[in-house]
Amino acid sequence: MTASYQVYPIGRIHKDDSGVRIEIEDAFQEALDGLDGFSHITVLYWFHQNDTAKKRGILKVRPRKDPTNPLTGVFATHSPCRPNLIAITHCRITAIDGNVIRIDEIDAYDQTPVIDIKAFIPMDRLAKESVRVPDWVNNRRKGGGAP
Amino acid sequence: MTASYQVYPIGRIHKDDSGVRIEIEDAFQEALDGLDGFSHITVLYWFHQNDTAKKRGILKVRPRKDPTNPLTGVFATHSPCRPNLIAITHCRITAIDGNVIRIDEIDAYDQTPVIDIKAFIPMDRLAKESVRVPDWVNNRRKGGGAP
Repeated sequence: MTASYQVYPIGRIHKDDSGVRIEIEDAFQEALDGLDGFSHITVLYWFHQNDTAKKRGILKVRPRKDPTNPLTGVFATHSPCRPNLIAITHCRITAIDGNVIRIDEIDAYDQTPVIDIKAFIPMDRLAKESVRVPDWVNNRRKGGGAP
Repeated sequence: MTASYQVYPIGRIHKDDSGVRIEIEDAFQEALDGLDGFSHITVLYWFHQNDTAKKRGILKVRPRKDPTNPLTGVFATHSPCRPNLIAITHCRITAIDGNVIRIDEIDAYDQTPVIDIKAFIPMDRLAKESVRVPDWVNNRRKGGGAP
């Protein structure tokens, strides 16, 4: 049996009439110092609605829930069903007020647990390299799901 | 007390005379199907050497261990000391042989536990937006640490 590691929520996503924001727990507010120097953040959140043995055991999916896409291993997709339910997305910061990071938008539900925030630093190395992706990535179906 | 989530290693990083590679556990090999259509991967690994209450409690650091950099909240850095010890990096795939992903390089130690692999899909939205970072990001000291 392999060891496991513990991940704790450091805050939650909120979506309501007052906008989209990440509320960081008071205990971690100090960890935001200096974030106002950045325009964007990488947000790691937990697909908590999929935290069941069954969904964590799904190893192949049709990307974006499109039946015309090839059956693909979850590590070759951004599927929300995967062994460890970690999502990565990038957001533009619109304001930081104390323990609240206001953002432009995020592809996650209200109340989703956030597990890490990282300042976004452009990946200059990747910009210089040739990046190759399979056809399904660029053939977006209208109304399709996440990558 | 907030709930916590369980993260399991899905493989390990290996660095030796035969090169740099990620060996995925046999149980998850199927989840690699289709990854050969991509040139790059996003690798999530666990800073297992810092998995102590003390290091997970560090909320501010001098970025890149450079004493001339401002004391900064860990969420505004890529510090390996942070509440949840998740690292994100991007690698170029050089070959995939069964459960082994050979990569060009990775900024992690031999035997580091890998917790997720995601196909790398370029972030076109970010390429079009103006990204702002503080001065310390571009002032790299010789021999300095990670971002």
